[in-house]
Amino acid sequence: MDDDMESGSLGPFLERPRTFPNMRSKSNTPLIFRMLRKINVRLLFVLLLLGFTAIFYVGASTSPIIVFVFSVCIISFLLSIYLTKWVLSKDEGPPEMAEISDAIRDGAEGYFRTQYGTISKMALLLALVILGIYLFRSPTPQQESSGIGRLTSAFITVAAFLLGALCSGVAGYVGMWVSVRANVRVSSAARRSAREALQIAVRAGGFSALVVVGMAVIGVAILYATFYVWLGVDSPGSMKVTDLPLLLVGYGFGASFVALFAQLGGGIYTKAADVGADLVGKVEQGIPEDDPRNPAVIADLVGDNVGDCAARGADLFESIAAEIISAMILGASMAERCKIEGEFRSLSNPSGFILFPLVVHSFDLIVSSVGIFSIRGTRDSGVIAAIEDPMTILQRGYSVTIILAVLTFGLSTRWMLYTEQAPSAWFNFALCGLVGIMTAYIFVWITQYYTDYKHEPVRTLALSSSTGHGTNIIAGISLGLESTALPVLVISVSIVSAFWLGQTSGLVDEAGNPTGGLFGTAVATMGMLSTAAYVLTMDMFGPIADNAGGIVEMSQQPESVREITDVLDAVGNTTKATTKGFAIGSAALASFLLFSAYMDEVAAFAHQPFKQVDIAIPEVFVGGLLGSMLIFLFSGWACAAVGRTAQEVVNEVRRQFIERPGIMDYKEKPDYGRCVAIVASASLREMIKPGALAIISPIAVGLVFRILGYYTGHPLLGAKVVAAMLMFATVSGILMALFLNTAGGAWDNAKKYIETGALGGKGSDCHKAAITGDTVGDPFKDTAGPSLHVLIKMLATITLVMAPIFL
Amino acid sequence: MDDDMESGSLGPFLERPRTFPNMRSKSNTPLIFRMLRKINVRLLFVLLLLGFTAIFYVGASTSPIIVFVFSVCIISFLLSIYLTKWVLSKDEGPPEMAEISDAIRDGAEGYFRTQYGTISKMALLLALVILGIYLFRSPTPQQESSGIGRLTSAFITVAAFLLGALCSGVAGYVGMWVSVRANVRVSSAARRSAREALQIAVRAGGFSALVVVGMAVIGVAILYATFYVWLGVDSPGSMKVTDLPLLLVGYGFGASFVALFAQLGGGIYTKAADVGADLVGKVEQGIPEDDPRNPAVIADLVGDNVGDCAARGADLFESIAAEIISAMILGASMAERCKIEGEFRSLSNPSGFILFPLVVHSFDLIVSSVGIFSIRGTRDSGVIAAIEDPMTILQRGYSVTIILAVLTFGLSTRWMLYTEQAPSAWFNFALCGLVGIMTAYIFVWITQYYTDYKHEPVRTLALSSSTGHGTNIIAGISLGLESTALPVLVISVSIVSAFWLGQTSGLVDEAGNPTGGLFGTAVATMGMLSTAAYVLTMDMFGPIADNAGGIVEMSQQPESVREITDVLDAVGNTTKATTKGFAIGSAALASFLLFSAYMDEVAAFAHQPFKQVDIAIPEVFVGGLLGSMLIFLFSGWACAAVGRTAQEVVNEVRRQFIERPGIMDYKEKPDYGRCVAIVASASLREMIKPGALAIISPIAVGLVFRILGYYTGHPLLGAKVVAAMLMFATVSGILMALFLNTAGGAWDNAKKYIETGALGGKGSDCHKAAITGDTVGDPFKDTAGPSLHVLIKMLATITLVMAPIFL
Repeated sequence: MDDDMESGSLGPFLERPRTFPNMRSKSNTPLIFRMLRKINVRLLFVLLLLGFTAIFYVGASTSPIIVFVFSVCIISFLLSIYLTKWVLSKDEGPPEMAEISDAIRDGAEGYFRTQYGTISKMALLLALVILGIYLFRSPTPQQESSGIGRLTSAFITVAAFLLGALCSGVAGYVGMWVSVRANVRVSSAARRSAREALQIAVRAGGFSALVVVGMAVIGVAILYATFYVWLGVDSPGSMKVTDLPLLLVGYGFGASFVALFAQLGGGIYTKAADVGADLVGKVEQGIPEDDPRNPAVIADLVGDNVGDCAARGADLFESIAAEIISAMILGASMAERCKIEGEFRSLSNPSGFILFPLVVHSFDLIVSSVGIFSIRGTRDSGVIAAIEDPMTILQRGYSVTIILAVLTFGLSTRWMLYTEQAPSAWFNFALCGLVGIMTAYIFVWITQYYTDYKHEPVRTLALSSSTGHGTNIIAGISLGLESTALPVLVISVSIVSAFWLGQTSGLVDEAGNPTGGLFGTAVATMGMLSTAAYVLTMDMFGPIADNAGGIVEMSQQPESVREITDVLDAVGNTTKATTKGFAIGSAALASFLLFSAYMDEVAAFAHQPFKQVDIAIPEVFVGGLLGSMLIFLFSGWACAAVGRTAQEVVNEVRRQFIERPGIMDYKEKPDYGRCVAIVASASLREMIKPGALAIISPIAVGLVFRILGYYTGHPLLGAKVVAAMLMFATVSGILMALFLNTAGGAWDNAKKYIETGALGGKGSDCHKAAITGDTVGDPFKDTAGPSLHVLIKMLATITLVMAPIFL
Repeated sequence: MDDDMESGSLGPFLERPRTFPNMRSKSNTPLIFRMLRKINVRLLFVLLLLGFTAIFYVGASTSPIIVFVFSVCIISFLLSIYLTKWVLSKDEGPPEMAEISDAIRDGAEGYFRTQYGTISKMALLLALVILGIYLFRSPTPQQESSGIGRLTSAFITVAAFLLGALCSGVAGYVGMWVSVRANVRVSSAARRSAREALQIAVRAGGFSALVVVGMAVIGVAILYATFYVWLGVDSPGSMKVTDLPLLLVGYGFGASFVALFAQLGGGIYTKAADVGADLVGKVEQGIPEDDPRNPAVIADLVGDNVGDCAARGADLFESIAAEIISAMILGASMAERCKIEGEFRSLSNPSGFILFPLVVHSFDLIVSSVGIFSIRGTRDSGVIAAIEDPMTILQRGYSVTIILAVLTFGLSTRWMLYTEQAPSAWFNFALCGLVGIMTAYIFVWITQYYTDYKHEPVRTLALSSSTGHGTNIIAGISLGLESTALPVLVISVSIVSAFWLGQTSGLVDEAGNPTGGLFGTAVATMGMLSTAAYVLTMDMFGPIADNAGGIVEMSQQPESVREITDVLDAVGNTTKATTKGFAIGSAALASFLLFSAYMDEVAAFAHQPFKQVDIAIPEVFVGGLLGSMLIFLFSGWACAAVGRTAQEVVNEVRRQFIERPGIMDYKEKPDYGRCVAIVASASLREMIKPGALAIISPIAVGLVFRILGYYTGHPLLGAKVVAAMLMFATVSGILMALFLNTAGGAWDNAKKYIETGALGGKGSDCHKAAITGDTVGDPFKDTAGPSLHVLIKMLATITLVMAPIFL
């Protein structure tokens, strides 16, 4: 529903309403933004420079690898500044475009401020809870031996949590900031050349991708280096470097906490507005998508920014942070088991295994930048959309990126993972990375097969619309359920084969048992995410193109301009769908890694081995049941939130059409502000319930079974039940997310297929049935589905951080 | 969609088509039916008498408890013969009713023959496979010590499998046999009195309930007694009685194998016909449900019999058989661990723990019979539906049954489970039974809360229809997803508390560890199913009333008669929904028990302990992922099958309306036979794919990981992965079934709520949206949902039977 190729005749358009209400709500600005605004820019620059110098100094005292990571991140930030300047230098088009764009920007920034105000309050509350837990828990033996007391440990966790939350918020803001500025520039460029419009959208997406990935990497690196220097790691009598990564989990939890609420709030906002606008506008009144007469159209366009851009930025930030931290933990524990304890700064020391993920993502920044810059728009200035499909251009960039990624990945494994103990281990791990890259590729292919109307499934779905609304829904749900099979088979094969490659790498523990299996899985995950920045660029491209199309439609541009934005928009849809496959695959792998880290941590706290989670124990089985149930309930609540809010929008839009009959003849101006206000306040209200469920339920289950275990004489029962809950929730969450994303994408494209003229085309009964399917798919693919990606990783990090209270 | 209270004006009805094509397809009669038909009735009677004498003799040589069980079963068979005679003595009404009824009967019996012909061929093939596996496997130590060779073991398993399959088939046939005869008698009685119609429907349901439950009990009892005598159990040097129940698993597998295909084939048949009939009839043409002008109406009515009656009979038969066998296995292994080895025929011997489930279900037959006979129809002969709600009458009968069940359950625990070792254990187990009975009660309540339009959820769903098809579907799916939470919490509490009650019962193993926990869970399951026969009666009541309503509508009876059948039908809907909650709750518990039995069996085959399934091992985690995926894929294929077949029906019905325009004016007769033929052949074709998936995938996964384990040096890997697959599939299956059943039921009743005049009433846009929801819910609640109940238990029994090939 994000986009449509409608171009129905608009009838007389005499008195176009040119002005849009200013939706900025100044009274609501949270404290943090007001403070930020007061800072002098030059002072900020000086402070930043000083900060970077300090960071480099700390990094240099830690490891040369950290210096490399810092440098790459800072270069990519400079590149991203160049990209912004380039994008902002483009013209904003005629005043009517700028006007619409301003309305969108005000709506989006207003909502962002209110939403993140709420989220930051919750984050502070949670920080206090964590502080309390860590002040009253008993320290682990490692911590005792290294002299880290309760206070230090509590402070470290809380600081990491808050930094993660802050960075995640900034990542979301950056995504939205650029998209509300680029959309109108893309619209304007579309009047001149498809290629230029494409380039602006790609570079705007590239800006936020580089910032998001760079921030995730540099954030972890700074934390690591600071703790390293501060705690005097590896000097006699203090902490070992292999225990350091466990201190970073708070960062991952902070990131996923903010990402969850950002995705829920944004997802509810965008889809409630979209469904509401479509149900009245397209189905009841028969006006095209993004028509200025629709009172909910501005809310819909605002939604694309806060839902797709801001939320996806936070989501990917969190994915990368969680994956880096979990891989560091596994690398550290493997290095410790294998007794890889080389000379400090020599190449065969444990730092190689620990810092490997940071290096992989540094190369990710480099190769993705090459990919982004390989998409150029200067070759000609005519309308060439008909000559070259934008998808081909993006794919070519992706191919460049992926070939470079394979090369740099091999290089990094040789550089970082070479050890005298097992000279060929690095090659096995390079193969693991290849497994990950191939998994990502196959995932993309499967997603396209099930959601692209060039293939059988979507065509069958479109055909089922010809027998009515009911058969369309049945067919879409069946398609979604069926589409879970292939990705699960692929992920199963890649887990088992990466584990096996790692296991046979030659790395053995003291007793001579092969021990690289889990790290192999971790390397595969890194392989999968080794082109994350380029993938995120393609993902961000979608909502920018969608918004540009909306602005073109609303400002009544000629047909030819709309055709260009429609083509870009359609490509954006496909790239958005494939990113989801990518996100869910990496979530599955990352969650499995975090699960292992959780078991290590529980063992450390409990002062006893914790190697097994036996589902034959009834309580553990019950934990699994509750974990799967959490996924179903969460998805239900997320969809219900969209449904309820959409009903409010429908009633408001219907009311406006009845009370202001002049709207349909362009004689009266619809009240866009009302719809924006309704959606904003409803989505803020509705995000709380599912979000709170996700955070409270693992804690509650852990505590209840800890108490039960205490009375029935089962030590570690709470920790075991939570582990089962986490694993079952992960499995059910992956399947549910695959189902929701694919069904939603397929419905959307089945509708588009009919709109190309098949099976009766636009306006036919078949088309109406397809629109119903599309409406149902909206909360599936853009609210519940992506929220589940975040939920899975948030569950994994919350159990890690909260582990002390389950024992 | 099963039923409707439509009563739209029918316009001129001049030339009603009075004759229906004979849909019997004689050429297709499978061999087994042809053989059965040739047997002389008197000869059969003599043979039966001889058989019973032999059975009693064998039973008496085994245990007095078996004699008690036999006697109760035979008495209940006699009672059921009385019920049939009573039902058949009622009049069949005017010729037009009889004519319709004949058409339904022919269609149903024709389909049943073809379907069971296919199923029996597949069963024979599978029996050969099992034979092969058991001939080449190594016997367990117990079997070796008791002198059971490979051949005996293979023969026992295959014979039990085939007997289970046969009995399951008979149970299905019985359910259908009585319903196609009772439907017309209920219609006819509805012309005289609501009370009489209710009584006929209840007694017809009671007949099949008594036969189904009685057959499940007597089948297990006969097998047990035969093996006991044949193998000379408990005599020196031969098998111990505690090893006997494991030989019965083939029976459970045979039953679930047939039930799975019966439910799939029947479920696809009934819902494809229903959806097809409604989409064209109600939505496009605006004619009422079951209108004689609808070419798919006979197929729809046939579907109620083959889908709801035959399939539900097989389903409940399998539930009870699986639950009895799993409880017997657990009772036996607990008795062995606790060294309860009393004197043969003394009261404190292991037989008490083993035969307990048979006694519980014998009492079930007694108390349910009392409940069924407590519903009398002779009090008056006027139309009293308005005075007394049939639901109240059924509920009163249920209350009688449940009070008696509590008493007899307490009695049975004292009788069977008293042991000198732990004198108060029986009381703890009685409390476990109470937990089960309460769980069943709460399940029924929760189901009603989410599916009855007296409560908030369905009213909210109805309200969401007023904003369009899309919001209706979103709200229904959210409702279904949300409704999984409470049942899961209840089942979690009951598993943990029953386990705890069993654990503290005082029964300890040789080392002094408490050991009654799992048996406590088993007793709770029995408690849940301790009124199964009455519940099945209420369930069977539904489709009979539905069919009666159809016959009344088709034979154009006066309004007042239709009102009576409509009320009965609405009650039948509620009872059907609650039975599903009941079935899924017991499936969850039974599957958990069978899982424990599987672990015991693997340990026995592998000659090494097998106590843990550790999901931290990647392969085991992958097994879980594949198990959950199986549930999603199976549900998807089941729904898709209905969707595809429904589309065929829609196209055929549309074709008939176009080619024979006289149908709408009653001038031409629709070709009912074409729709029946289309649905029958499509559902036979479509049931194969999901059914084969369910059977092949656990075997394939077990074999693949067995081989992988062999090459990577992991013993038992195959068995562990299959165990994880089973557990994850159970958990996901429970949740998915709850989601599908509740969403389907809620959509159905939201539509009914609107039909009572709320939100615009019949014919409004809101009603149309609600019909779409109802159509989507049809395959959810009557095809995929109930198939999942069976699938969960079939997976548990197939892994038990196939265990030898995973090692």
